[in-house]
Amino acid sequence: MRVLERLDQLYEIGGGPGANRLGGSPGEDEAHELAASWMREAGLEVDVDPAGNLFGRLSGSDSELPEVWTGSHLDTVPAGGRFDGALGVVAGLEAVERAGRQARTLTVVAFRDEEGCCGPGCVGSRALCSGWLDPRPEAFVETHVEQGPRLEEAGVPLAIVTGIVATARGEVVFEGAAGHAGTTPMAGRRDALAEAAEFVLALRDAAAEVDGAVATVGRLEVEPGATNVIPGRVVVSVDVRAPDVERVAAVLAAVPGETSRTDAVAMAAAPSDALRLEVERLGLPVVELPSGAGHDAGVLAAAGVPTAMLFVRSLNGGVSHSPDEETSAEDVALCVDVLAGALARLSSVE
Amino acid sequence: MRVLERLDQLYEIGGGPGANRLGGSPGEDEAHELAASWMREAGLEVDVDPAGNLFGRLSGSDSELPEVWTGSHLDTVPAGGRFDGALGVVAGLEAVERAGRQARTLTVVAFRDEEGCCGPGCVGSRALCSGWLDPRPEAFVETHVEQGPRLEEAGVPLAIVTGIVATARGEVVFEGAAGHAGTTPMAGRRDALAEAAEFVLALRDAAAEVDGAVATVGRLEVEPGATNVIPGRVVVSVDVRAPDVERVAAVLAAVPGETSRTDAVAMAAAPSDALRLEVERLGLPVVELPSGAGHDAGVLAAAGVPTAMLFVRSLNGGVSHSPDEETSAEDVALCVDVLAGALARLSSVE
Repeated sequence: MRVLERLDQLYEIGGGPGANRLGGSPGEDEAHELAASWMREAGLEVDVDPAGNLFGRLSGSDSELPEVWTGSHLDTVPAGGRFDGALGVVAGLEAVERAGRQARTLTVVAFRDEEGCCGPGCVGSRALCSGWLDPRPEAFVETHVEQGPRLEEAGVPLAIVTGIVATARGEVVFEGAAGHAGTTPMAGRRDALAEAAEFVLALRDAAAEVDGAVATVGRLEVEPGATNVIPGRVVVSVDVRAPDVERVAAVLAAVPGETSRTDAVAMAAAPSDALRLEVERLGLPVVELPSGAGHDAGVLAAAGVPTAMLFVRSLNGGVSHSPDEETSAEDVALCVDVLAGALARLSSVE
Repeated sequence: MRVLERLDQLYEIGGGPGANRLGGSPGEDEAHELAASWMREAGLEVDVDPAGNLFGRLSGSDSELPEVWTGSHLDTVPAGGRFDGALGVVAGLEAVERAGRQARTLTVVAFRDEEGCCGPGCVGSRALCSGWLDPRPEAFVETHVEQGPRLEEAGVPLAIVTGIVATARGEVVFEGAAGHAGTTPMAGRRDALAEAAEFVLALRDAAAEVDGAVATVGRLEVEPGATNVIPGRVVVSVDVRAPDVERVAAVLAAVPGETSRTDAVAMAAAPSDALRLEVERLGLPVVELPSGAGHDAGVLAAAGVPTAMLFVRSLNGGVSHSPDEETSAEDVALCVDVLAGALARLSSVE
């Protein structure tokens, strides 16, 4: 199957273990060049914008009409998976070829540095949207692996994404008093790590109380960080997500410190309906899920582009950002089928 | 006061902030050269052993008798304090000069790398004792700042050390499952940091239950350590100390994983009695304390040298391994007085 062969070719770039095509790295460049060659092979018109985003256009019969876009990103985290991002570009190209020439131009896009190698991510799509003067696309449909266990648990291959969750990110600093591990009695200690440990557990418990919310401390740095010194300062990262900003705030009620919050972004009715009709056409159950991760789709939606997302079932408990990321060939075939049909619906003019 | 001036001179070596004379560094070498020059100035015979330990000898009238030693170390932790180690060498030299020529040779020693810049510490004294063929000294008396708050709280300048506490050191590894912070529901998580946080608090609570015990997690490393990834692996250091190995075991009962344990070492009666008589001579209260920190004295005691330690009051809550380490000029003067008297008692022959 060509989609899987191409995902394998992309996976080889940058050397193992896992996918290594960090945003801005030669690996990402190589992936963009390879994708551009596939676009040319398919007869698409290739274009690169000032931010380095790659576009392949199958011109529509009516050049006056706004375009319909599909795609995702080709960069990965270090030692990432085979499907994250790449599936949306490769399956998008496959679906555009299958849909064929329509009234509207069909465009496959590969955005730059979605993972945020050195910052908050979605670098390419943000750059595009921040300076957007051109007419916006009629629709953007992003296909992406779920990166979570819900479809696997439900035994269903595809889901229509309802929106991107609200998030809060920040750091919390705990100040204690560094001291000698052997000579400072327990009663007199101000151990910054003990305070941070209480926080880690309180945040976990707060998120577990709020429906649909998750909270993660992924980084924790101890100063001075010596075996025989009581920690004097600990810095932890905080990442909270929930279907709406109110639930994020409910989790954060227990949390001191500043966080930067992003509101939830809803997907649009028209392109989501097109996906739904195609899922129904294949006789598959229609499952709707919020996306716990940020995506380029969230950036385009926030910029006013009618946007939809199609999730494809992740296996292995939904593991992602890891070489263990897995999605079956059958599910990839189904997603191409649904996407091609939805693109045809969105780009034809009744 | 010459002792404080010399501590200042040592403190200048290596640049600030704090004392920077790591074991094996040019700063430690410079400190040893400076101390050797003071020894020569005082008419002592200077010697350096194969491990780099520095000896200054004031020859006794009877060269057949085993020597009496005093001293400590000149290396420091990074950004360390003015008194830790250095006081024992500088006050030791002062006390030897004041005691003057006795029957036994009086020796001031500066051991190498007590702090363990790159390992378990007491490098110089361990090297000396491991290959010891020479006759052992009659006694070793180490003067050291307490590095804890007990003398300050008691309002007493000096203490006789009863022994070095038993210790256990090791690492505990928590294995979880790394996953996407946004897409993995709270219920399905195996967050290695949450497990480690429970451990940090359980260890703290276990130590608080055991009289005289302390426990510290000074290092905690999170993998992969990214804001948006659930921690998959956390490694923590464990440092437990108590007056005897049974109490260390009681704290560790709750702790999985291997630790290397060191038994407690008692100080010897004869040199401790000499210190006690001198403390009483000055009309000071006699306070006895265990040492929560390891010292070269513990190594010599374990090697069979009759050993005693004199603690000098630390101020600022006992802070040590920090530029805030402080001991008063009055207390330094008292310790030199007591040490000189004790050395005279131990080196004279009735």
